[in-house]
Amino acid sequence: MIYAAVLGYGTVGSGVVELLDRNRDKIAKGVGDEVAVKYILDVREFPDSPYASLFVKDFAVIEADPEVAVVVETIGGVGVAQTFTRRALEAGKSVVTSNKELVSEFGCELLALGKEHHACYLFEASVGGGVPILHPISVCLNGDELTEVYGIVNGTTNYILTQMIQNGLSFETALRQAQELGYAERNPSADVNGVDTCRKICILADLAFGKNIAPSTVRTEGIADIQMADIAAAASIHAHIKLIGRTVRGEDGRIASYVAPHVLLMENLLAHVEDVFNGIVVKGGATGETMFYGKGAGKMPTATAVVSDICEALRRCRAEAFPHWEMAGEEVLADPDELVNRWYIRANMDHDEAAVLFGDVTVLQTDENGTAFLTGPMSGFACAEKLEGVDALAVYRVLE
Amino acid sequence: MIYAAVLGYGTVGSGVVELLDRNRDKIAKGVGDEVAVKYILDVREFPDSPYASLFVKDFAVIEADPEVAVVVETIGGVGVAQTFTRRALEAGKSVVTSNKELVSEFGCELLALGKEHHACYLFEASVGGGVPILHPISVCLNGDELTEVYGIVNGTTNYILTQMIQNGLSFETALRQAQELGYAERNPSADVNGVDTCRKICILADLAFGKNIAPSTVRTEGIADIQMADIAAAASIHAHIKLIGRTVRGEDGRIASYVAPHVLLMENLLAHVEDVFNGIVVKGGATGETMFYGKGAGKMPTATAVVSDICEALRRCRAEAFPHWEMAGEEVLADPDELVNRWYIRANMDHDEAAVLFGDVTVLQTDENGTAFLTGPMSGFACAEKLEGVDALAVYRVLE
Repeated sequence: MIYAAVLGYGTVGSGVVELLDRNRDKIAKGVGDEVAVKYILDVREFPDSPYASLFVKDFAVIEADPEVAVVVETIGGVGVAQTFTRRALEAGKSVVTSNKELVSEFGCELLALGKEHHACYLFEASVGGGVPILHPISVCLNGDELTEVYGIVNGTTNYILTQMIQNGLSFETALRQAQELGYAERNPSADVNGVDTCRKICILADLAFGKNIAPSTVRTEGIADIQMADIAAAASIHAHIKLIGRTVRGEDGRIASYVAPHVLLMENLLAHVEDVFNGIVVKGGATGETMFYGKGAGKMPTATAVVSDICEALRRCRAEAFPHWEMAGEEVLADPDELVNRWYIRANMDHDEAAVLFGDVTVLQTDENGTAFLTGPMSGFACAEKLEGVDALAVYRVLE
Repeated sequence: MIYAAVLGYGTVGSGVVELLDRNRDKIAKGVGDEVAVKYILDVREFPDSPYASLFVKDFAVIEADPEVAVVVETIGGVGVAQTFTRRALEAGKSVVTSNKELVSEFGCELLALGKEHHACYLFEASVGGGVPILHPISVCLNGDELTEVYGIVNGTTNYILTQMIQNGLSFETALRQAQELGYAERNPSADVNGVDTCRKICILADLAFGKNIAPSTVRTEGIADIQMADIAAAASIHAHIKLIGRTVRGEDGRIASYVAPHVLLMENLLAHVEDVFNGIVVKGGATGETMFYGKGAGKMPTATAVVSDICEALRRCRAEAFPHWEMAGEEVLADPDELVNRWYIRANMDHDEAAVLFGDVTVLQTDENGTAFLTGPMSGFACAEKLEGVDALAVYRVLE
């Protein structure tokens, strides 16, 4: 029998306990031994839980028990979650988590700490919820030099945008609906402002390129300013506006990372990723383009990723097996405005004025909201230069 | 320095040698040591190759060299490929392969042999080419009980169907074009008849359900009989006809596996998988639906999967880490006709006759080719019963 301890009995933590119980036999086959929860740490009381006897309030009990091989951290944040993670790794226990804030801020250090103490630090659940994406990048695509990762990695904002696009709801109404359905927090700012997407694209960049990208260095825009006129104009060519996190490595090795709304043409598979689903595209020199899709949040999908990582941590035993990246200075950070793509622009000008400014343009719509058009490929710098002095109502990158 | 030997210097084998060379630094970081090719085994001569000095003709040289830690088998088939794989595993060397015929026929035994000798047998490249799908199933979704896997896993047939659908080419013309472009073999029967898809769905079933599914037990239909009239009728609702391999585990634990053309409604992401791309959907009780997409064939995508597996084999060291499944008797095999779905039917009858037979139907088209319509959900048995004595011109499952 192998023992795990679960820190935090919230949505994900309780899902992990439930899933370890429900799929006990399959897990035992995969790991080669039965896995059971020995402790659950939470400040709250759960006297009616079937697992009531497992609850403890003092992390030192878990830390000192040599029978605990794996610690599951589903507390969230960078406070006690970080303290307990460090203490567990220092005690030689592997740690598995869904905590994207902690991994994006301190993952590099925590992986090094784990390696030092021959313990795994695994976090598949921190990006894409139930969508396998971190192991595919660090294991299956390890033989390739990756050049770009982008995707829809926040289910809340994607749900809101889907409602705005399909049902014509305003942002405020769609947000309220998402809150009523439990898809958005009472304080939805980390989702709506793009901060959650920022943390996830950092983790993806860390693993894809082997360099630590700090969230504070990533330019981040949310969805609160997206207007119905733009959604309608995009819809006229069956395109969708989506919140995209993106990280691109240039030929000089520098990495551009950002979060912003984009227009996705219908040819792009991500244009069809709706509601709370996530979709992530990975590009590599040898592999070309791969795409990963599934439920990006929710109790059981996220718990599946955590439980799978528990199994993986128990199967692995050499430090070299762990994903890793190294610290990186500003020299590896490129400006996203260097990236070249077509642009969606809506501005108070007519077709002719647009053509004079941008050359060959594709007009989607002209009405009282101005003219919406697509430009040819150009960098953000070139686009901004052309737009100097122009009353631009919307400017988005186009993904094809 | 860690050494590998490559068996077979064809498309994939030469890609592996090239990629190990090109991405040497990244691979060394991932593995913790440099990886180099020490031998290439081929019956042919390659005097002008930059790797000419590495070629050998006798497998015994590789087998006897304790410096060789990993053997890459890209010979194909179940003859010498099988013999060399067994001898390498017995010598304690890990084996990595893209050989779907060998894995689908003898994978279960070869994994057991590897485990006995503390050597890995890894084959991510055998399904989906460059699409990560086997590790995601056996590692990332290991915590879930999977219920179904289906997908487009043969690029050749998908290219032919895409040409028939988008450019109105006949099957024969599309096949000839695929051959000219190198997407189809001179003898395309294993692709066209669905045999290649059958092998891949067996491997997917093995890993998803932990039971060995022999290719000979899987009912397999190809694409040669698909007619333009059906492609046109499907197109009238923006649906596409695709060759799908599918394996489903019922609540009683029995597994239904088959290969056949399907109508994919536009809501299904796989309807948008075109040309030589592959797409695979995995369903689980806790995770819901995940989807994996990318280049299903080609020298470098496949070589990426092989090289990534070489790295993974070198990182792993405990036998418990390997994917595994157990032998299974007929009691685990269910009949695909038990599976319930809507059906696409084209027959010489009018709307009223269809409604009398099937109740509420959706008519897509009526013309000199008969009436094409969608039924409600029913099993294959129920559908066949209703069609007794009917002149059915086409009968396909519908995926929504």
